[in-house]
Amino acid sequence: MVYRVPYLLESSGGVAYLVGNEKSFCRGRSVSGQVTRTRILRVGLDLASAEGLCRITFGSVAGRASLSKGGVVAHFPHLGDLKRSILDVALDLWSRTCLGVDTGVGGGLPSLIRYLDVWIGWTRRAGLPGSCPIAQAIVELSFLPGSVREAAAAAESVWRQTLIMLIRDAIDKRHLLQDTDVAQLAWDLLGIYLSHHVSSHSLRDPDADRKAQFSVNRIVASIEATNEGAAHQRQGGR
Amino acid sequence: MVYRVPYLLESSGGVAYLVGNEKSFCRGRSVSGQVTRTRILRVGLDLASAEGLCRITFGSVAGRASLSKGGVVAHFPHLGDLKRSILDVALDLWSRTCLGVDTGVGGGLPSLIRYLDVWIGWTRRAGLPGSCPIAQAIVELSFLPGSVREAAAAAESVWRQTLIMLIRDAIDKRHLLQDTDVAQLAWDLLGIYLSHHVSSHSLRDPDADRKAQFSVNRIVASIEATNEGAAHQRQGGR
Repeated sequence: MVYRVPYLLESSGGVAYLVGNEKSFCRGRSVSGQVTRTRILRVGLDLASAEGLCRITFGSVAGRASLSKGGVVAHFPHLGDLKRSILDVALDLWSRTCLGVDTGVGGGLPSLIRYLDVWIGWTRRAGLPGSCPIAQAIVELSFLPGSVREAAAAAESVWRQTLIMLIRDAIDKRHLLQDTDVAQLAWDLLGIYLSHHVSSHSLRDPDADRKAQFSVNRIVASIEATNEGAAHQRQGGR
Repeated sequence: MVYRVPYLLESSGGVAYLVGNEKSFCRGRSVSGQVTRTRILRVGLDLASAEGLCRITFGSVAGRASLSKGGVVAHFPHLGDLKRSILDVALDLWSRTCLGVDTGVGGGLPSLIRYLDVWIGWTRRAGLPGSCPIAQAIVELSFLPGSVREAAAAAESVWRQTLIMLIRDAIDKRHLLQDTDVAQLAWDLLGIYLSHHVSSHSLRDPDADRKAQFSVNRIVASIEATNEGAAHQRQGGR
């Protein structure tokens, strides 16, 4: 599994990742093998977005990728390998879509808010056909087989640690109250994302984006440091 | 399907339900048939709590209920019938556990808070072995077959309407600000419940109850009417 540690780009307020190891598919595979593997994962990602990771089978992926089951198995001997790799590319896509932007606001609370703005509804902007495969995997965590469960829990941990890092930066910059409960705020914000996932995907609420943004703003307003020094420091960044 | 409309008991601030029709299993069935049916539904409810409604099969229910598959099918000819009936008894159990108490606080905001206190973590108190079958069904709504999806959506609607009714009562009693966005607040509170469901069940966060209660209190504090008249009206009920 690829191991990621988020860190802040101090120059831009952006987020980048330290990646723990090289991806195995870059080594010892032919170009055509890599193309096929990429096609399998792209099809798998679309299926995970449309139907949820739990419902993916070798057959469903093979059919959509115009391959035989054996063709899929040659790249992913176990279904768990395939599902873990799908989670991996989903996290990569999330990271590029949601964190790969220069917020242009110099970190702190404006960066946190900007990232949450981009995060809510990111799957549409990334061109996925349905809901967020990672959120659905987190929701179904208890029902996933062992190694896939670990991968989904690791993705959740990346999300939580990213939020915690952004919250801590906002506290350090005195944009949020110094006694802000970091773990609680990360729980609340991740909760809003999961609620938005259920609301927009399961319940088809056309107003889900607006409601989630409202909830984020309400929480932030309740713990925002409003003294003049903090306002000056942020230089009207919000 | 049993059709429910929540209404407030003005005397106690409690909630009760108008039930639209008689349950079919009370008519034209022998006592032993009713006992077997009840056993099937109890086993099914436990399985839905432990594994999710999506994963229930005739075989899994029959095995746990010490019946043949045919014995289950005799009561529920289609798997969809069984799953809808399981949702029905889950909603009944929720209603009895969470709404069947006299809050003793005369309605309004104290009642809303009291109900939310009881709601969060209700499945443990009701003796279910795992998570909330209704929350899991709502999360997996898109993946349920037609008639079961309708039943899960109806249960979600009962929850949402119950919250809206309690919120409106708190606004009428001037415990909450008059310009409170009722739909938004219901979205936020239901979202906290769903986040708690994921947090406690999928992520096994031992602190999920406390975090959810904190979130509820923060939202309520932000829209609580704090004028003296309202405080007097509530008579220190909180």
